[in-house]
Amino acid sequence: MFEEKISLINQRLINILPKGSFPQKELFKAADYSLNSPGKRIRPLLVLTTLEVLKKDIKLGLDPACALELIHTYSFIHDDLPCMDNDDFRRGKKTLHKAFNEWLAVLTGDYLLTYSFEIIAKAKGLDSEQKVELIKVLSECSGGKGLIAGQVVDLSLQLKDADYKTLEFMDLNKTAALFIAAVEFASIIAKIKDKERKILKEFAKNLGFAFQVIDDILDAKVEDDQLPSKVDVVSVLGIDEAKKLAKKLTLQAEKSLRKIKRKSDPLLEITKLLLDRKI
Amino acid sequence: MFEEKISLINQRLINILPKGSFPQKELFKAADYSLNSPGKRIRPLLVLTTLEVLKKDIKLGLDPACALELIHTYSFIHDDLPCMDNDDFRRGKKTLHKAFNEWLAVLTGDYLLTYSFEIIAKAKGLDSEQKVELIKVLSECSGGKGLIAGQVVDLSLQLKDADYKTLEFMDLNKTAALFIAAVEFASIIAKIKDKERKILKEFAKNLGFAFQVIDDILDAKVEDDQLPSKVDVVSVLGIDEAKKLAKKLTLQAEKSLRKIKRKSDPLLEITKLLLDRKI
Repeated sequence: MFEEKISLINQRLINILPKGSFPQKELFKAADYSLNSPGKRIRPLLVLTTLEVLKKDIKLGLDPACALELIHTYSFIHDDLPCMDNDDFRRGKKTLHKAFNEWLAVLTGDYLLTYSFEIIAKAKGLDSEQKVELIKVLSECSGGKGLIAGQVVDLSLQLKDADYKTLEFMDLNKTAALFIAAVEFASIIAKIKDKERKILKEFAKNLGFAFQVIDDILDAKVEDDQLPSKVDVVSVLGIDEAKKLAKKLTLQAEKSLRKIKRKSDPLLEITKLLLDRKI
Repeated sequence: MFEEKISLINQRLINILPKGSFPQKELFKAADYSLNSPGKRIRPLLVLTTLEVLKKDIKLGLDPACALELIHTYSFIHDDLPCMDNDDFRRGKKTLHKAFNEWLAVLTGDYLLTYSFEIIAKAKGLDSEQKVELIKVLSECSGGKGLIAGQVVDLSLQLKDADYKTLEFMDLNKTAALFIAAVEFASIIAKIKDKERKILKEFAKNLGFAFQVIDDILDAKVEDDQLPSKVDVVSVLGIDEAKKLAKKLTLQAEKSLRKIKRKSDPLLEITKLLLDRKI
Protein backbone atom coordinates (compact mmCIF):
# COMPACT_ATOMS: atom_id res chain seq x y z
CA MET A 1 0.00 0.00 0.00
CA PHE A 2 3.02 2.31 0.26
CA GLU A 3 4.62 1.56 -3.13
CA GLU A 4 2.84 4.41 -4.86
CA LYS A 5 3.95 6.99 -2.31
CA ILE A 6 7.52 5.71 -2.23
CA SER A 7 7.66 5.83 -6.00
CA LEU A 8 6.38 9.43 -5.91
CA ILE A 9 9.10 10.31 -3.37
CA ASN A 10 11.87 8.57 -5.33
CA GLN A 11 10.83 10.29 -8.54
CA ARG A 12 10.87 13.72 -6.90
CA LEU A 13 14.23 13.05 -5.23
CA ILE A 14 15.75 12.25 -8.63
CA ASN A 15 14.45 15.52 -10.08
CA ILE A 16 15.15 17.76 -7.11
CA LEU A 17 18.91 18.17 -7.71
CA PRO A 18 20.23 20.61 -10.35
CA LYS A 19 20.98 19.00 -13.70
CA GLY A 20 23.45 20.27 -16.27
CA SER A 21 27.04 21.37 -16.49
CA PHE A 22 28.40 23.42 -13.60
CA PRO A 23 31.96 24.08 -12.41
CA GLN A 24 30.78 22.45 -9.15
CA LYS A 25 29.13 19.47 -10.92
CA GLU A 26 31.00 16.97 -8.67
CA LEU A 27 28.94 18.34 -5.78
CA PHE A 28 25.63 17.53 -7.44
CA LYS A 29 26.96 14.13 -8.59
CA ALA A 30 27.99 13.31 -5.03
CA ALA A 31 24.63 14.50 -3.67
CA ASP A 32 22.83 12.32 -6.20
CA TYR A 33 25.03 9.32 -5.28
CA SER A 34 23.94 9.45 -1.64
CA LEU A 35 20.40 10.77 -2.00
CA ASN A 36 19.35 8.37 -4.71
CA SER A 37 20.76 5.19 -3.23
CA PRO A 38 17.96 2.77 -2.39
CA GLY A 39 16.63 3.85 1.01
CA LYS A 40 13.54 3.03 3.02
CA ARG A 41 12.27 6.66 2.72
CA ILE A 42 10.50 6.29 6.06
CA ARG A 43 10.56 9.96 7.03
CA PRO A 44 9.04 11.30 3.78
CA LEU A 45 6.64 8.33 3.71
CA LEU A 46 5.48 9.32 7.17
CA VAL A 47 4.74 12.87 5.95
CA LEU A 48 2.64 11.66 3.03
CA THR A 49 0.85 8.94 5.00
CA THR A 50 -0.03 11.34 7.80
CA LEU A 51 -1.41 13.76 5.19
CA GLU A 52 -3.52 10.90 3.78
CA VAL A 53 -4.94 10.20 7.26
CA LEU A 54 -5.63 13.94 7.64
CA LYS A 55 -7.46 13.84 4.27
CA LYS A 56 -5.20 16.44 2.63
CA ASP A 57 -3.70 16.27 -0.86
CA ILE A 58 -0.40 14.41 -0.35
CA LYS A 59 1.22 16.27 -3.27
CA LEU A 60 1.29 19.42 -1.11
CA GLY A 61 3.64 17.60 1.24
CA LEU A 62 5.95 16.09 -1.36
CA ASP A 63 8.66 18.77 -1.37
CA PRO A 64 8.75 19.21 2.45
CA ALA A 65 8.84 15.38 2.70
CA CYS A 66 11.84 15.29 0.35
CA ALA A 67 13.52 18.06 2.39
CA LEU A 68 13.40 15.65 5.37
CA GLU A 69 15.07 12.92 3.31
CA LEU A 70 17.81 15.46 2.41
CA ILE A 71 18.36 16.11 6.11
CA HIS A 72 18.50 12.37 6.84
CA THR A 73 20.97 11.90 3.96
CA TYR A 74 23.25 14.77 5.06
CA SER A 75 23.27 13.39 8.59
CA PHE A 76 24.45 9.92 7.57
CA ILE A 77 27.05 11.33 5.12
CA HIS A 78 28.64 13.27 8.00
CA ASP A 79 28.05 10.43 10.48
CA ASP A 80 29.93 7.97 8.21
CA LEU A 81 33.06 10.20 8.07
CA PRO A 82 36.38 8.83 9.40
CA CYS A 83 36.27 11.25 12.36
CA MET A 84 32.82 9.96 13.37
CA ASP A 85 31.65 6.36 12.74
CA ASN A 86 34.25 5.73 10.01
CA ASP A 87 31.92 3.52 7.96
CA ASP A 88 32.91 2.17 4.56
CA PHE A 89 29.48 1.02 3.41
CA ARG A 90 25.97 2.52 3.47
CA ARG A 91 22.82 1.34 1.70
CA GLY A 92 24.82 -1.47 0.05
CA LYS A 93 27.31 0.90 -1.59
CA LYS A 94 30.56 2.61 -0.60
CA THR A 95 30.03 5.56 1.72
CA LEU A 96 30.38 8.95 0.03
CA HIS A 97 33.84 9.74 1.37
CA LYS A 98 35.03 6.33 0.12
CA ALA A 99 33.39 6.61 -3.31
CA PHE A 100 34.45 10.27 -3.80
CA ASN A 101 36.63 11.89 -1.13
CA GLU A 102 36.40 13.25 2.36
CA TRP A 103 36.25 16.98 1.70
CA LEU A 104 33.54 16.52 -0.91
CA ALA A 105 31.57 14.40 1.57
CA VAL A 106 31.68 17.22 4.15
CA LEU A 107 30.58 19.80 1.56
CA THR A 108 27.87 17.53 0.10
CA GLY A 109 26.39 17.12 3.58
CA ASP A 110 26.49 20.89 4.03
CA TYR A 111 24.83 21.33 0.65
CA LEU A 112 21.96 18.90 1.32
CA LEU A 113 21.33 20.51 4.71
CA THR A 114 21.23 24.01 3.21
CA TYR A 115 19.17 22.91 0.22
CA SER A 116 16.47 21.36 2.42
CA PHE A 117 15.57 24.85 3.67
CA GLU A 118 15.56 26.25 0.13
CA ILE A 119 13.14 23.50 -0.97
CA ILE A 120 10.68 24.39 1.77
CA ALA A 121 10.99 28.14 1.17
CA LYS A 122 10.15 27.53 -2.51
CA ALA A 123 7.50 24.79 -2.09
CA LYS A 124 4.35 25.30 -4.17
CA GLY A 125 0.83 25.49 -2.72
CA LEU A 126 1.82 26.56 0.79
CA ASP A 127 1.44 30.04 2.27
CA SER A 128 4.29 31.95 3.92
CA GLU A 129 2.99 31.30 7.45
CA GLN A 130 3.08 27.56 6.77
CA LYS A 131 6.59 27.76 5.31
CA VAL A 132 7.91 29.65 8.34
CA GLU A 133 6.28 27.05 10.63
CA LEU A 134 7.82 24.19 8.62
CA ILE A 135 11.25 25.83 8.81
CA LYS A 136 10.92 26.36 12.56
CA VAL A 137 10.09 22.66 13.02
CA LEU A 138 12.85 21.52 10.65
CA SER A 139 15.56 23.67 12.23
CA GLU A 140 14.53 22.67 15.76
CA CYS A 141 14.22 18.93 15.06
CA SER A 142 17.47 18.74 13.09
CA GLY A 143 19.43 21.26 15.21
CA GLY A 144 21.40 21.50 18.42
CA LYS A 145 18.39 20.52 20.52
CA GLY A 146 17.37 17.76 18.11
CA LEU A 147 19.25 15.51 15.71
CA ILE A 148 22.67 17.09 16.38
CA ALA A 149 22.22 16.83 20.17
CA GLY A 150 21.62 13.11 19.71
CA GLN A 151 24.74 12.78 17.57
CA VAL A 152 26.89 14.61 20.13
CA VAL A 153 25.72 12.31 22.94
CA ASP A 154 26.10 9.24 20.70
CA LEU A 155 29.72 10.11 19.94
CA SER A 156 30.72 11.04 23.47
CA LEU A 157 28.81 8.51 25.59
CA GLN A 158 30.90 5.89 27.41
CA LEU A 159 29.38 2.52 28.31
CA LYS A 160 30.04 3.11 32.01
CA ASP A 161 27.96 6.34 31.95
CA ALA A 162 25.09 4.92 29.91
CA ASP A 163 21.77 4.63 31.71
CA TYR A 164 18.24 4.38 30.34
CA LYS A 165 17.66 8.13 30.63
CA THR A 166 20.73 9.00 28.59
CA LEU A 167 19.91 6.40 25.94
CA GLU A 168 16.37 7.75 25.72
CA PHE A 169 17.69 11.32 25.28
CA MET A 170 20.10 10.11 22.59
CA ASP A 171 17.52 8.11 20.61
CA LEU A 172 14.72 10.67 20.92
CA ASN A 173 17.07 13.27 19.46
CA LYS A 174 19.11 11.39 16.91
CA THR A 175 16.16 9.43 15.50
CA ALA A 176 12.72 10.34 16.85
CA ALA A 177 13.22 14.08 16.21
CA LEU A 178 12.95 13.66 12.43
CA PHE A 179 9.92 11.35 12.85
CA ILE A 180 8.32 14.11 14.89
CA ALA A 181 9.24 16.62 12.18
CA ALA A 182 7.48 14.38 9.64
CA VAL A 183 4.10 14.36 11.42
CA GLU A 184 4.49 18.04 12.34
CA PHE A 185 4.99 18.80 8.64
CA ALA A 186 1.71 17.04 7.85
CA SER A 187 -0.07 18.82 10.71
CA ILE A 188 1.13 22.23 9.50
CA ILE A 189 0.21 21.52 5.88
CA ALA A 190 -3.25 20.19 6.84
CA LYS A 191 -3.71 23.02 9.38
CA ILE A 192 -5.16 20.70 12.05
CA LYS A 193 -5.97 21.67 15.63
CA ASP A 194 -3.31 21.73 18.38
CA LYS A 195 -4.91 18.85 20.29
CA GLU A 196 -4.66 16.44 17.36
CA ARG A 197 -1.20 17.76 16.51
CA LYS A 198 -0.04 16.91 20.00
CA ILE A 199 -1.33 13.33 19.74
CA LEU A 200 0.47 12.85 16.42
CA LYS A 201 3.71 14.16 17.96
CA GLU A 202 3.39 11.64 20.78
CA PHE A 203 2.79 8.89 18.23
CA ALA A 204 5.88 9.89 16.21
CA LYS A 205 8.05 10.14 19.31
CA ASN A 206 7.31 6.54 20.29
CA LEU A 207 7.50 5.31 16.71
CA GLY A 208 10.90 6.97 16.19
CA PHE A 209 12.31 5.67 19.48
CA ALA A 210 11.01 2.15 18.64
CA PHE A 211 12.62 2.45 15.19
CA GLN A 212 16.04 3.17 16.74
CA VAL A 213 15.74 0.33 19.29
CA ILE A 214 14.87 -2.08 16.47
CA ASP A 215 17.87 -0.74 14.50
CA ASP A 216 20.10 -1.54 17.48
CA ILE A 217 18.62 -5.06 17.70
CA LEU A 218 19.17 -5.69 13.98
CA ASP A 219 22.73 -4.30 14.22
CA ALA A 220 23.48 -6.57 17.19
CA LYS A 221 22.46 -9.62 15.13
CA VAL A 222 24.89 -8.64 12.36
CA GLU A 223 27.73 -8.13 14.82
CA ASP A 224 26.82 -11.34 16.67
CA ASP A 225 30.28 -12.68 17.41
CA GLN A 226 31.94 -9.37 18.09
CA LEU A 227 32.29 -7.43 21.28
CA PRO A 228 29.72 -4.66 21.58
CA SER A 229 31.37 -1.89 19.59
CA LYS A 230 28.99 0.88 20.51
CA VAL A 231 26.83 2.15 23.32
CA ASP A 232 23.19 1.51 22.50
CA VAL A 233 20.03 0.01 23.91
CA VAL A 234 21.24 -3.55 23.26
CA SER A 235 24.72 -3.16 24.75
CA VAL A 236 23.31 -1.43 27.85
CA LEU A 237 20.03 -3.27 28.51
CA GLY A 238 20.68 -6.58 26.75
CA ILE A 239 18.84 -7.99 23.75
CA ASP A 240 15.79 -9.29 25.62
CA GLU A 241 15.09 -5.99 27.36
CA ALA A 242 15.66 -4.19 24.07
CA LYS A 243 13.03 -6.35 22.37
CA LYS A 244 10.58 -5.71 25.21
CA LEU A 245 11.23 -1.97 24.90
CA ALA A 246 10.63 -2.00 21.14
CA LYS A 247 7.34 -3.81 21.69
CA LYS A 248 6.30 -1.42 24.47
CA LEU A 249 7.07 1.69 22.43
CA THR A 250 5.21 0.28 19.43
CA LEU A 251 2.13 -0.38 21.57
CA GLN A 252 2.33 3.18 22.89
CA ALA A 253 2.51 4.51 19.33
CA GLU A 254 -0.57 2.46 18.42
CA LYS A 255 -2.38 3.73 21.50
CA SER A 256 -1.83 7.34 20.38
CA LEU A 257 -3.26 6.52 16.98
CA ARG A 258 -6.46 5.22 18.56
CA LYS A 259 -6.90 8.60 20.26
CA ILE A 260 -7.22 10.38 16.92
CA LYS A 261 -10.79 10.57 15.77
CA ARG A 262 -9.86 9.54 12.25
CA LYS A 263 -9.35 6.39 10.24
CA SER A 264 -5.64 5.96 10.86
CA ASP A 265 -5.07 2.49 9.33
CA PRO A 266 -2.16 3.52 7.06
CA LEU A 267 -0.19 4.88 10.04
CA LEU A 268 -0.97 1.72 12.01
CA GLU A 269 0.34 -0.28 9.06
CA ILE A 270 3.64 1.68 9.03
CA THR A 271 4.00 1.10 12.77
CA LYS A 272 3.60 -2.69 12.39
CA LEU A 273 5.92 -2.80 9.37
CA LEU A 274 8.69 -0.97 11.25
CA LEU A 275 8.46 -3.28 14.26
CA ASP A 276 8.59 -6.42 12.11
CA ARG A 277 11.27 -5.23 9.68
CA LYS A 278 14.32 -7.37 9.04
CA ILE A 279 16.56 -4.60 7.58
CA MET B 1 31.65 55.10 13.13
CA PHE B 2 31.05 51.35 13.10
CA GLU B 3 32.00 50.59 16.71
CA GLU B 4 28.43 50.92 17.97
CA LYS B 5 27.03 48.50 15.38
CA ILE B 6 29.84 45.99 15.90
CA SER B 7 29.30 46.11 19.63
CA LEU B 8 25.56 45.49 19.08
CA ILE B 9 26.40 42.50 16.86
CA ASN B 10 28.95 41.07 19.31
CA GLN B 11 26.53 41.41 22.20
CA ARG B 12 23.77 39.61 20.32
CA LEU B 13 26.15 36.85 19.19
CA ILE B 14 27.11 36.20 22.81
CA ASN B 15 23.44 35.87 23.80
CA ILE B 16 22.22 33.95 20.78
CA LEU B 17 23.53 30.53 21.84
CA PRO B 18 21.64 28.41 24.44
CA LYS B 19 22.94 28.81 27.99
CA GLY B 20 22.61 26.25 30.75
CA SER B 21 23.33 22.60 31.36
CA PHE B 22 22.57 20.20 28.54
CA PRO B 23 23.81 16.67 27.78
CA GLN B 24 25.14 18.23 24.53
CA LYS B 25 26.73 21.24 26.31
CA GLU B 26 30.09 20.62 24.55
CA LEU B 27 28.33 21.53 21.30
CA PHE B 28 27.26 24.95 22.57
CA LYS B 29 30.69 25.50 24.15
CA ALA B 30 32.38 24.70 20.84
CA ALA B 31 29.95 26.96 18.94
CA ASP B 32 30.68 29.79 21.39
CA TYR B 33 34.44 29.23 21.01
CA SER B 34 34.32 29.83 17.26
CA LEU B 35 31.46 32.31 17.02
CA ASN B 36 32.69 34.60 19.75
CA SER B 37 36.34 34.78 18.73
CA PRO B 38 37.28 38.33 17.72
CA GLY B 39 36.15 38.68 14.10
CA LYS B 40 35.70 41.59 11.74
CA ARG B 41 31.90 40.99 11.58
CA ILE B 42 31.84 42.46 8.07
CA ARG B 43 28.79 40.56 6.82
CA PRO B 44 26.47 41.51 9.73
CA LEU B 45 27.93 45.03 9.71
CA LEU B 46 27.00 45.29 6.05
CA VAL B 47 23.39 44.33 6.87
CA LEU B 48 23.06 46.99 9.56
CA THR B 49 24.88 49.70 7.59
CA THR B 50 22.74 49.08 4.51
CA LEU B 51 19.64 49.34 6.71
CA GLU B 52 20.95 52.65 8.03
CA VAL B 53 21.37 53.96 4.47
CA LEU B 54 17.84 52.73 3.69
CA LYS B 55 16.60 54.64 6.78
CA LYS B 56 15.18 51.55 8.48
CA ASP B 57 15.54 50.61 12.16
CA ILE B 58 18.77 48.59 12.26
CA LYS B 59 17.52 46.50 15.21
CA LEU B 60 15.09 44.76 12.81
CA GLY B 61 18.09 43.40 10.97
CA LEU B 62 20.15 42.33 13.98
CA ASP B 63 19.07 38.67 14.13
CA PRO B 64 19.24 38.06 10.36
CA ALA B 65 22.66 39.80 10.43
CA CYS B 66 23.82 37.41 13.16
CA ALA B 67 22.48 34.47 11.14
CA LEU B 68 24.92 35.48 8.40
CA GLU B 69 27.81 35.50 10.87
CA LEU B 70 26.76 31.97 11.94
CA ILE B 71 26.95 30.86 8.30
CA HIS B 72 30.38 32.48 7.91
CA THR B 73 31.55 30.78 11.12
CA TYR B 74 30.26 27.33 10.12
CA SER B 75 31.95 27.69 6.73
CA PHE B 76 35.38 28.41 8.20
CA ILE B 77 35.04 25.66 10.85
CA HIS B 78 34.49 23.10 8.06
CA ASP B 79 37.03 24.78 5.78
CA ASP B 80 39.74 24.50 8.46
CA LEU B 81 39.24 20.70 8.85
CA PRO B 82 42.16 18.35 8.09
CA CYS B 83 40.40 17.05 4.95
CA MET B 84 40.05 20.60 3.62
CA ASP B 85 42.57 23.40 4.35
CA ASN B 86 43.97 21.67 7.45
CA ASP B 87 44.54 24.92 9.33
CA ASP B 88 45.72 24.99 12.93
CA PHE B 89 44.95 28.63 13.70
CA ARG B 90 42.02 30.97 13.04
CA ARG B 91 41.32 34.42 14.44
CA GLY B 92 44.50 34.15 16.57
CA LYS B 93 43.36 30.98 18.35
CA LYS B 94 43.54 27.26 17.68
CA THR B 95 41.02 26.11 15.08
CA LEU B 96 38.00 24.32 16.53
CA HIS B 97 39.11 20.79 15.61
CA LYS B 98 42.48 21.49 17.28
CA ALA B 99 40.99 23.07 20.42
CA PHE B 100 38.23 20.42 20.76
CA ASN B 101 38.19 17.53 18.28
CA GLU B 102 37.37 16.79 14.68
CA TRP B 103 33.94 15.20 15.02
CA LEU B 104 32.73 18.00 17.27
CA ALA B 105 34.01 20.53 14.72
CA VAL B 106 31.94 18.88 11.96
CA LEU B 107 28.82 18.81 14.16
CA THR B 108 29.34 22.38 15.41
CA GLY B 109 29.48 23.58 11.81
CA ASP B 110 26.28 21.65 11.08
CA TYR B 111 24.67 23.17 14.16
CA LEU B 112 25.54 26.78 13.30
CA LEU B 113 24.31 26.29 9.74
CA THR B 114 20.99 24.82 10.92
CA TYR B 115 20.58 27.39 13.67
CA SER B 116 20.98 30.30 11.26
CA PHE B 117 17.67 29.32 9.62
CA GLU B 118 15.97 28.95 13.00
CA ILE B 119 17.08 32.46 13.98
CA ILE B 120 15.53 33.96 10.86
CA ALA B 121 12.31 31.94 11.19
CA LYS B 122 11.96 33.27 14.75
CA ALA B 123 13.16 36.86 14.20
CA LYS B 124 10.96 39.54 15.79
CA GLY B 125 9.34 42.38 13.85
CA LEU B 126 9.36 40.73 10.42
CA ASP B 127 6.35 39.26 8.63
CA SER B 128 6.22 35.72 7.24
CA GLU B 129 6.67 36.88 3.63
CA GLN B 130 9.88 38.66 4.62
CA LYS B 131 11.15 35.62 6.52
CA VAL B 132 10.53 33.31 3.57
CA GLU B 133 12.36 35.79 1.29
CA LEU B 134 15.29 36.00 3.73
CA ILE B 135 15.50 32.19 3.87
CA LYS B 136 15.42 31.92 0.08
CA VAL B 137 18.30 34.39 -0.18
CA LEU B 138 20.27 32.72 2.63
CA SER B 139 19.87 29.19 1.26
CA GLU B 140 20.74 30.29 -2.28
CA CYS B 141 23.77 32.40 -1.33
CA SER B 142 25.18 29.82 1.06
CA GLY B 143 24.18 26.73 -0.95
CA GLY B 144 25.33 24.62 -3.89
CA LYS B 145 25.08 27.56 -6.29
CA GLY B 146 26.67 29.98 -3.81
CA LEU B 147 29.20 29.60 -1.00
CA ILE B 148 29.51 25.81 -1.33
CA ALA B 149 30.03 26.01 -5.11
CA GLY B 150 32.95 28.36 -4.43
CA GLN B 151 34.40 25.96 -1.87
CA VAL B 152 34.15 23.00 -4.26
CA VAL B 153 36.00 24.89 -7.00
CA ASP B 154 38.55 26.23 -4.49
CA LEU B 155 39.39 22.70 -3.33
CA SER B 156 39.51 21.10 -6.75
CA LEU B 157 41.12 23.81 -8.91
CA GLN B 158 44.63 23.09 -10.23
CA LEU B 159 46.99 25.96 -11.04
CA LYS B 160 47.29 24.80 -14.66
CA ASP B 161 43.49 25.07 -15.14
CA ALA B 162 43.10 28.42 -13.40
CA ASP B 163 42.06 31.32 -15.60
CA TYR B 164 40.45 34.63 -14.69
CA LYS B 165 36.94 33.32 -15.39
CA THR B 166 37.32 30.39 -13.00
CA LEU B 167 38.86 32.57 -10.29
CA GLU B 168 36.00 35.03 -10.66
CA PHE B 169 33.44 32.20 -10.33
CA MET B 170 35.25 30.91 -7.25
CA ASP B 171 35.52 34.27 -5.49
CA LEU B 172 32.02 35.46 -6.39
CA ASN B 173 30.64 32.29 -4.82
CA LYS B 174 32.90 31.60 -1.87
CA THR B 175 33.05 35.24 -0.73
CA ALA B 176 30.83 37.70 -2.61
CA ALA B 177 27.70 35.52 -2.21
CA LEU B 178 27.43 36.27 1.54
CA PHE B 179 28.09 39.99 0.89
CA ILE B 180 25.20 39.90 -1.58
CA ALA B 181 23.06 38.10 1.03
CA ALA B 182 23.85 40.92 3.48
CA VAL B 183 22.55 43.74 1.25
CA GLU B 184 19.64 41.55 0.11
CA PHE B 185 18.69 41.05 3.76
CA ALA B 186 18.58 44.82 4.24
CA SER B 187 16.59 45.29 1.01
CA ILE B 188 14.01 42.70 2.10
CA ILE B 189 13.71 44.15 5.61
CA ALA B 190 13.39 47.72 4.30
CA LYS B 191 11.04 46.56 1.49
CA ILE B 192 12.75 48.70 -1.15
CA LYS B 193 12.03 48.67 -4.88
CA ASP B 194 13.60 46.09 -7.22
CA LYS B 195 15.63 48.72 -9.10
CA GLU B 196 17.42 49.90 -5.97
CA ARG B 197 17.79 46.32 -4.76
CA LYS B 198 19.57 45.41 -7.99
CA ILE B 199 22.04 48.29 -7.61
CA LEU B 200 22.84 47.22 -4.04
CA LYS B 201 23.43 43.64 -5.23
CA GLU B 202 25.87 44.88 -7.86
CA PHE B 203 27.64 46.95 -5.20
CA ALA B 204 27.93 43.93 -2.86
CA LYS B 205 29.14 41.66 -5.65
CA ASN B 206 32.07 43.95 -6.44
CA LEU B 207 32.76 44.68 -2.77
CA GLY B 208 32.83 40.95 -1.92
CA PHE B 209 35.06 40.09 -4.86
CA ALA B 210 37.41 42.95 -3.94
CA PHE B 211 37.45 41.70 -0.35
CA GLN B 212 38.62 38.25 -1.48
CA VAL B 213 41.30 39.66 -3.80
CA ILE B 214 42.63 41.80 -0.94
CA ASP B 215 42.60 38.71 1.30
CA ASP B 216 44.72 36.89 -1.26
CA ILE B 217 47.14 39.85 -1.42
CA LEU B 218 47.46 39.97 2.39
CA ASP B 219 47.94 36.17 2.51
CA ALA B 220 50.65 36.34 -0.14
CA LYS B 221 52.57 38.85 2.00
CA VAL B 222 52.50 36.46 4.97
CA GLU B 223 53.70 33.54 2.85
CA ASP B 224 56.31 35.73 1.15
CA ASP B 225 59.20 33.29 1.01
CA GLN B 226 57.21 30.16 0.33
CA LEU B 227 56.10 28.69 -2.94
CA PRO B 228 52.52 29.60 -3.82
CA SER B 229 50.57 27.03 -1.83
CA LYS B 230 47.16 27.72 -3.28
CA VAL B 231 45.43 28.77 -6.44
CA ASP B 232 44.19 32.32 -6.06
CA VAL B 233 44.21 35.70 -7.76
CA VAL B 234 47.81 36.41 -6.67
CA SER B 235 49.27 33.04 -7.71
CA VAL B 236 47.54 33.21 -11.10
CA LEU B 237 47.69 36.89 -12.05
CA GLY B 238 50.65 38.06 -9.95
CA ILE B 239 50.64 40.59 -7.13
CA ASP B 240 50.61 43.72 -9.30
CA GLU B 241 47.63 42.61 -11.37
CA ALA B 242 45.86 41.51 -8.17
CA LYS B 243 46.30 44.99 -6.68
CA LYS B 244 44.98 46.58 -9.87
CA LEU B 245 41.97 44.25 -9.78
CA ALA B 246 41.21 45.10 -6.14
CA LYS B 247 41.31 48.80 -6.99
CA LYS B 248 39.12 48.35 -10.07
CA LEU B 249 36.49 46.34 -8.19
CA THR B 250 36.46 48.89 -5.37
CA LEU B 251 35.88 51.70 -7.84
CA GLN B 252 33.03 49.72 -9.41
CA ALA B 253 31.47 49.21 -5.99
CA GLU B 254 31.71 52.95 -5.33
CA LYS B 255 30.17 53.66 -8.72
CA SER B 256 27.11 51.54 -7.83
CA LEU B 257 26.70 53.48 -4.60
CA ARG B 258 26.55 56.76 -6.48
CA LYS B 259 23.62 55.38 -8.52
CA ILE B 260 21.46 55.07 -5.41
CA LYS B 261 19.47 58.19 -4.78
CA ARG B 262 20.32 58.14 -1.09
CA LYS B 263 23.03 59.39 1.24
CA SER B 264 25.23 56.30 1.17
CA ASP B 265 28.32 57.58 3.02
CA PRO B 266 28.47 54.74 5.59
CA LEU B 267 28.62 52.11 2.80
CA LEU B 268 31.28 54.16 1.00
CA GLU B 269 33.23 54.23 4.25
CA ILE B 270 33.07 50.41 4.59
CA THR B 271 34.26 50.07 1.00
CA LYS B 272 37.31 52.26 1.62
CA LEU B 273 38.09 50.52 4.92
CA LEU B 274 38.05 47.09 3.29
CA LEU B 275 40.35 48.18 0.47
CA ASP B 276 42.88 49.72 2.85
CA ARG B 277 42.78 47.01 5.51
CA LYS B 278 45.98 45.42 6.73
CA ILE B 279 44.44 42.25 8.24
